[in-house]
Amino acid sequence: MTDFDLKDYLSERKMRVDAALDGYFPSVDGLQKKVVEAARYSLFAGGKRLRPILCLAAAEAVNGDWEAAMPVACALEMVHTYSLIHDDLPAMDDDDYRRGKLTNHKVFGEAMAILAGDALMSEAFTLMAGNGAEGVRAESLLRVVGLVARASGFRGMIGGQVIDLDCEKCDADLATVEYMHIHKTGHLISASLEAGGLLGGGTAEQVKALTSYGHHLGLAFQITDDLLDVEGDPRQMGKQPGSDVARNKKTYPALLGIQQAREAARERVNGALQALGDFPGEAIRPLEEIARYLLIRKG
Amino acid sequence: MTDFDLKDYLSERKMRVDAALDGYFPSVDGLQKKVVEAARYSLFAGGKRLRPILCLAAAEAVNGDWEAAMPVACALEMVHTYSLIHDDLPAMDDDDYRRGKLTNHKVFGEAMAILAGDALMSEAFTLMAGNGAEGVRAESLLRVVGLVARASGFRGMIGGQVIDLDCEKCDADLATVEYMHIHKTGHLISASLEAGGLLGGGTAEQVKALTSYGHHLGLAFQITDDLLDVEGDPRQMGKQPGSDVARNKKTYPALLGIQQAREAARERVNGALQALGDFPGEAIRPLEEIARYLLIRKG
Repeated sequence: MTDFDLKDYLSERKMRVDAALDGYFPSVDGLQKKVVEAARYSLFAGGKRLRPILCLAAAEAVNGDWEAAMPVACALEMVHTYSLIHDDLPAMDDDDYRRGKLTNHKVFGEAMAILAGDALMSEAFTLMAGNGAEGVRAESLLRVVGLVARASGFRGMIGGQVIDLDCEKCDADLATVEYMHIHKTGHLISASLEAGGLLGGGTAEQVKALTSYGHHLGLAFQITDDLLDVEGDPRQMGKQPGSDVARNKKTYPALLGIQQAREAARERVNGALQALGDFPGEAIRPLEEIARYLLIRKG
Repeated sequence: MTDFDLKDYLSERKMRVDAALDGYFPSVDGLQKKVVEAARYSLFAGGKRLRPILCLAAAEAVNGDWEAAMPVACALEMVHTYSLIHDDLPAMDDDDYRRGKLTNHKVFGEAMAILAGDALMSEAFTLMAGNGAEGVRAESLLRVVGLVARASGFRGMIGGQVIDLDCEKCDADLATVEYMHIHKTGHLISASLEAGGLLGGGTAEQVKALTSYGHHLGLAFQITDDLLDVEGDPRQMGKQPGSDVARNKKTYPALLGIQQAREAARERVNGALQALGDFPGEAIRPLEEIARYLLIRKG
């Protein structure tokens, strides 16, 4: 195998995604200027672009043209950003900061934050439906639109958020917390991989394997996120650790203890790697390295 | 021409749409029960089903199979309902009642109302993408998804809502108010007709004519809505007239005077009818009668 530098890979892909997002959702003049500005504020507030990068890497993993997946990759980031804006609202988690920056409603007001989130959701579907790349069949794109819609609705992200709101008051066990994470963040991550696989022209079996990788990866990501809140270095995380404990949040370390939570993360990373078992070598290198990286992440 | 009873037509179609909506978005058990219940509360809170009925009538107008347009017709109602839930929120118009019933956030709380709206939006796209009827090409369905997404985003509905929020404080003139209505409600109404025309297999010219009909009809609907608030009978409207005046809302009668507002409505209805000029007789009867009805509506 050739050398592979994950850091370079991620930063190059992030740059490409950032540029594409800027092109797909530019500033506008006129009476809609403010809502687009508000949406762009959160869209460019320092996201890691995990979902788009996974989508592009999935297209690559099936030897597809990853650039053809760029509109859908960007749409996934828009859906993710919309969910963060709405989650931060006073009626929801009431957060003033995210990634060290003021949240959308703190800058633009509550009404504009709701509408900026709504606008991002519409724009995601406008972008997906309106940008059929050459070689991508309308049937595949329609299937992708459907799976992203499904992953973001009450069967996925919104469903998870409802459970999360309920859990603040309840005495949730591990199974409920895991069910919540699978819905709140897991389904959209799996959808990113499934979409990339479909757009890259993967076989049904390959797409299934990628979706399974996404399922494991999403949970590994959540567990290591929870662990960082206990053990992380604030300089590398861009936020203070300990906020989960302060909120009495039901985290993996709180429910399992630190050692067992680390073990659970390892198991999920192994599950993700095993799902990719039948893929040929080089093309899945990025997905493998992303999964392995979760076990040593510092931020 | 044969006899045509608009009242019967509308009530039969409304019944069909109601039944389809109930089937496409049924109650669920489990942890997502509450958000689905909240979404269904507003979905079945007495809407006239104008957008779905127009969509089905447009498919009919091009001699298409109107039943094949039902999933998209229902999705349009979901998008419309989501916009009403978010518009009523305390951070927006802060309304306690809509169509004589408590608004969503008054019954389910603010967080759940935001999420119920979000869930309806996702469900609309899940429904459209997942229900390609026989005889409807994936390319057409994808185009419909794109135009509904566009009409609901910052270029359409959300854009109009942003202007509406701004206008509460500003000294808007007729041009700005009309621009706001075209965006806030007009584009989704036009989209309903365009979608129906496309799904029914209409020619490019027919689809363009239907879209133009929708543009005029949307404005005629708004003007007559404003007039009802001044002249209407509360028993037939299901709400008290005079609420626009009380809010100092910039309405057509307020900007033009009652006589000129009536004239403007007549002009828009004529514009709608003229747009349909080249269509063959019987198939466009429902669209014609709907447009004419606006001039004599009492609620």
